[in-house]
Amino acid sequence: MGKETRIGILTAGGDCPGLNAAIRGVGKSAIIEYGMRVFGFRDGFSGLINCDYKELNEKSLSGILTLGGTILGTSREKPFKGPELSDEESILSKPEKIKKTYENLGLDCLVCIGGNGTMKTAYKLYQSGLNVVGVPKTIDNDVWGTDYSFGFYSAVNIATEAIDRLHTTANSHKRTMVVEVMGHNAGWLALYSGIAGGGDIILIPEIKYNKKVIKKYLENRQKGGKPYSIIVVAEGIDIPLKKDGSTRNYSAGTYISRIVEEMTGLETRETKLGYIQRGGAPSPEDRIIATGLGEHAARLISEKKYGLMSAYDSHEIISIPLADVAGKTKIVPVDNPLIKMARSLGTCFGDTLPQE
Amino acid sequence: MGKETRIGILTAGGDCPGLNAAIRGVGKSAIIEYGMRVFGFRDGFSGLINCDYKELNEKSLSGILTLGGTILGTSREKPFKGPELSDEESILSKPEKIKKTYENLGLDCLVCIGGNGTMKTAYKLYQSGLNVVGVPKTIDNDVWGTDYSFGFYSAVNIATEAIDRLHTTANSHKRTMVVEVMGHNAGWLALYSGIAGGGDIILIPEIKYNKKVIKKYLENRQKGGKPYSIIVVAEGIDIPLKKDGSTRNYSAGTYISRIVEEMTGLETRETKLGYIQRGGAPSPEDRIIATGLGEHAARLISEKKYGLMSAYDSHEIISIPLADVAGKTKIVPVDNPLIKMARSLGTCFGDTLPQE
Amino acid sequence: MGKETRIGILTAGGDCPGLNAAIRGVGKSAIIEYGMRVFGFRDGFSGLINCDYKELNEKSLSGILTLGGTILGTSREKPFKGPELSDEESILSKPEKIKKTYENLGLDCLVCIGGNGTMKTAYKLYQSGLNVVGVPKTIDNDVWGTDYSFGFYSAVNIATEAIDRLHTTANSHKRTMVVEVMGHNAGWLALYSGIAGGGDIILIPEIKYNKKVIKKYLENRQKGGKPYSIIVVAEGIDIPLKKDGSTRNYSAGTYISRIVEEMTGLETRETKLGYIQRGGAPSPEDRIIATGLGEHAARLISEKKYGLMSAYDSHEIISIPLADVAGKTKIVPVDNPLIKMARSLGTCFGDTLPQE
Amino acid sequence: MGKETRIGILTAGGDCPGLNAAIRGVGKSAIIEYGMRVFGFRDGFSGLINCDYKELNEKSLSGILTLGGTILGTSREKPFKGPELSDEESILSKPEKIKKTYENLGLDCLVCIGGNGTMKTAYKLYQSGLNVVGVPKTIDNDVWGTDYSFGFYSAVNIATEAIDRLHTTANSHKRTMVVEVMGHNAGWLALYSGIAGGGDIILIPEIKYNKKVIKKYLENRQKGGKPYSIIVVAEGIDIPLKKDGSTRNYSAGTYISRIVEEMTGLETRETKLGYIQRGGAPSPEDRIIATGLGEHAARLISEKKYGLMSAYDSHEIISIPLADVAGKTKIVPVDNPLIKMARSLGTCFGDTLPQE
Repeated sequence: MGKETRIGILTAGGDCPGLNAAIRGVGKSAIIEYGMRVFGFRDGFSGLINCDYKELNEKSLSGILTLGGTILGTSREKPFKGPELSDEESILSKPEKIKKTYENLGLDCLVCIGGNGTMKTAYKLYQSGLNVVGVPKTIDNDVWGTDYSFGFYSAVNIATEAIDRLHTTANSHKRTMVVEVMGHNAGWLALYSGIAGGGDIILIPEIKYNKKVIKKYLENRQKGGKPYSIIVVAEGIDIPLKKDGSTRNYSAGTYISRIVEEMTGLETRETKLGYIQRGGAPSPEDRIIATGLGEHAARLISEKKYGLMSAYDSHEIISIPLADVAGKTKIVPVDNPLIKMARSLGTCFGDTLPQE
Repeated sequence: MGKETRIGILTAGGDCPGLNAAIRGVGKSAIIEYGMRVFGFRDGFSGLINCDYKELNEKSLSGILTLGGTILGTSREKPFKGPELSDEESILSKPEKIKKTYENLGLDCLVCIGGNGTMKTAYKLYQSGLNVVGVPKTIDNDVWGTDYSFGFYSAVNIATEAIDRLHTTANSHKRTMVVEVMGHNAGWLALYSGIAGGGDIILIPEIKYNKKVIKKYLENRQKGGKPYSIIVVAEGIDIPLKKDGSTRNYSAGTYISRIVEEMTGLETRETKLGYIQRGGAPSPEDRIIATGLGEHAARLISEKKYGLMSAYDSHEIISIPLADVAGKTKIVPVDNPLIKMARSLGTCFGDTLPQE
Repeated sequence: MGKETRIGILTAGGDCPGLNAAIRGVGKSAIIEYGMRVFGFRDGFSGLINCDYKELNEKSLSGILTLGGTILGTSREKPFKGPELSDEESILSKPEKIKKTYENLGLDCLVCIGGNGTMKTAYKLYQSGLNVVGVPKTIDNDVWGTDYSFGFYSAVNIATEAIDRLHTTANSHKRTMVVEVMGHNAGWLALYSGIAGGGDIILIPEIKYNKKVIKKYLENRQKGGKPYSIIVVAEGIDIPLKKDGSTRNYSAGTYISRIVEEMTGLETRETKLGYIQRGGAPSPEDRIIATGLGEHAARLISEKKYGLMSAYDSHEIISIPLADVAGKTKIVPVDNPLIKMARSLGTCFGDTLPQE
Repeated sequence: MGKETRIGILTAGGDCPGLNAAIRGVGKSAIIEYGMRVFGFRDGFSGLINCDYKELNEKSLSGILTLGGTILGTSREKPFKGPELSDEESILSKPEKIKKTYENLGLDCLVCIGGNGTMKTAYKLYQSGLNVVGVPKTIDNDVWGTDYSFGFYSAVNIATEAIDRLHTTANSHKRTMVVEVMGHNAGWLALYSGIAGGGDIILIPEIKYNKKVIKKYLENRQKGGKPYSIIVVAEGIDIPLKKDGSTRNYSAGTYISRIVEEMTGLETRETKLGYIQRGGAPSPEDRIIATGLGEHAARLISEKKYGLMSAYDSHEIISIPLADVAGKTKIVPVDNPLIKMARSLGTCFGDTLPQE
């Protein structure tokens, strides 16, 4: 009779709704279905480096499905990046410490729950000889290779609710309301919440905007008897340098708000949603996605399949090599059907006016 | 120069969140993108029979994206079913009246937004010579041929929130809480909300349950130190006739609640969510789905493609023949990945105990 | 130097949102402000009878402010009511067991968090010689002597949201929707949620309704172009016996729904909100009310004031003798300003037609 | 037989949840109970100046109870402040135009719904000879003379939900999260949402904070094993000038966030809730408060009582002279029972450490 299977699990990078659902998904199926033992590392890769962990059991995994945040804690620790680039020794030592923890605990596999950065680290650990499985999370939905990462739909709900609220002020005061949502590289959140919230202009990093188009579009609305507008801005859109070549010390939303008021004279107000987008209980869909991705990771381990990431492909849960994921970002394709659809309803993406 | 294109639009069957988003999706793209004129019929097929309509414009379509219900009204009117089966004349007369309305208004196409029953009627109208396009809605998600119908995710949200609430009472009182959700033929809503809400037992019409399995599962939980349980029941599961052969005058949830208390002696309480599952503002995702399906319908008309229904196939919006849809129901396949996943976490579907 | 003060705490009766906030309010101020030790009894008076408890500290009280239910558990155990009326011995023994627990733990006071029944028991324990302080909770808001009991506003929020949802179905289908909310003796919840939700008819136990008034009111709405109505019914309104003198085996909401359909011929649907009204996270206001009432209880103990209940009197937190509370119910006075206000806007309470 | 009574109604100042509920409260009771005619002016005092209005009837007042914003529109127009202080003529002309509108429409009274600024204007109009009644609204709850103004509880709900979300990120990342809520002069919103959200430090304009106390408090938490904290900041707290005597070009929340990180070295993040605090559907309680205050205004007019404002005094709706309200602000008294209560649970208000 073989020895029991032991797995480690950690959550790394920014927190997002569904982390606990994913931990539960991995852990419960590992314990109930496959009879494994599960060790949770504290605060992302820091816990792995410092061998800081607690064993998880059915009881500690019960009741966490709906909780926001992560019971394991998280951190921005990147073990393959040293504290100082010049300190060669420390660059090497963290991965070595990780290896030691892995071996001391007798782990058969490590489950890394995180975003793009975490998948990159997970892949490096796999290359270094550890068995690793990845589970993708991110409110940005920009992990390559999976239709959905959990956290995204919760963030869409929060951002859409905020846009709904801004609508009433926009209408009552005849104002232009600019709302900045998260999304450094990818505009998924701005796109989904912008469409769901009925945004008039949606600006995402993937589509280059033209100030004059924005001006003209808002003026046309004004002329058409709509003296209020909602502009949804992803935080990662390009904003120009100052004339002196320095970067602006304010965000994309503030920039758009300023130029809109300047160009059009319309009363404009800005809201930056900030951290509320990543906190709180996961939406029902994120609970399902997180549970599914987590459970699949345990299944992969039970089949001794490593170096993979759980992923959604339409309604199937599949796995793809970490090697394919690491270092990539899933951005919004310009021919995304939602963009086409929104244009057809008169939404402006800053590049062209509707019906030109 | 050709004449303008004129389309009619109606919402039929039970109301659900997203109907207004779909009306807006059809109407705005028809008007803005294709320059069509749009006529909205009141109260489903009744408005079509009685030529009761109002023309819709950009203004009347503005601000309705987030509103629950339908600005057009709806009804259960089925024009191909007479008031009395023996009254042959009236069976014929309603479709004739519809044809007259269609011709008098000079319509080029009719958009029917509704569920399975509506798609069936839409197909019959198409067979009778009218140009028709269908848009699928239903909180049950049981329209054949499309991954999603709008209304479903809103209902999942409502049902999940209710299950979350019942958890606190179940835990505090050590009770078994039975919650009955909608779903006559298909268990999609029970399945999704049951998993998202962490239901311990989920009973759906597609999986035959065994009373003894339910009894044993609850007793095992009790023994394992979990003296509380949540049972999610689709209203359409089979419940046995009374001993005298008559049907029971109570619902599936009540039946399960009674036999659980009887079999196990556990304190059991029942909640029937009822109509709150189909009311209120649509969830962000339903707004997107409804807008997408609606916009696609207008696109089909612009391409003179009729006899079709807008449908989601993964992330693409496609069209499928009404002929393929009519008369079918999309039930939950027994090998659905979510069922497999939930079983692996210890959820019971009433047919077998976990790990047997 | 005097000995430390030790207090016991329990939650009894039906669970409701805010119980944990109240436990935290008592416990944190007892520990932080007054240096007391706090013992939590499990499952209401059962824990007190069976000496089943755990000591609470700052850590175990942290993070529970927002949690629904009660971390201590609750039960319907009434120690002054025997299991069988004939079993005189056991009637006496439970209070004796309680006294033993109280003395063995060296308690200086017992905090009883609960509704009317719990305050009655608390008073009896006080009469029997124990130091007792009460904290009122109830979603019904019917505890005598306090403006608010926590749980009420959370229930108002849930019921109002449900009524909001029913409105969209009522309007879309031109239906009469009957919604039954909790409230056996007092109509506070029906009154508040009925007004907040824009109910057309509100029926509460304190106002005798007349079937003919309901009929006439609905017919007037119908004639006035409003073919939809919302009727909010408290579960405790009187419904007549059957003709054979037996009681009806259905609820007040079902009764009203049936007679409305019968009398008016209007399509009528019923929803019974049930247990979702008492579950889930407390509303912000209930968190404040519960914390305030709990903190005041600790303050009373620090001042050696016993036999009292924390209470809200406008914006002040005061205390009133349990002797005054026990055995009473706070019902809605017929001259309540909200009733007068709602009548003036055309709301019907079933007794008279507006403007008669 | 006397002539019909005609009233005007307007909403002025910043929008907030419940404005439509108040319009409906005034209008429905005026029409249904008192048989008055009701004229709604567009965009606050602008509509009154420019005689821009529409008559309201039962139909136009139906279904607006739950809508955010204001169907009448609002503006910051202050008729007693000229566009330029030197332009004496225009200073006089706006009130004259208002008088003309009032007389031309044959109004018997004007209902002004707004905050402190609006009540001041209302009082000036009353002094100038018009019949005026005021209805207080504000999310800041700082209108003098009334316990509650509608908008406040909705804002408390939104801010508390945001704080709940920030808690999960604070805990998962061991961060200090600073959240800035509205409140220029009064800290009601920060106080209520801070207590309801379990804020560790609450800073309000009424209590002078000491940087060193904040530093020490956070360090004590850190030492006590709580490496995360929530700081709730009212936007109106004093922040010091720069060393060069100039004002800082960032907000109170940013200032606190910076000094916390500087003083303690703790990872700190800031969120500014902004406009989402004043948008969206009113909470059930605000619907009731708004309806009650509005209905009372109509009642006052029916009794020919002018120069008054509807107000809440505990559970009674009363009226107080506009003369008493105008120019005052209701700030949080330092002996407010909630502050005392929160201190007793260990909350810090920046002035002293708990238990010093």
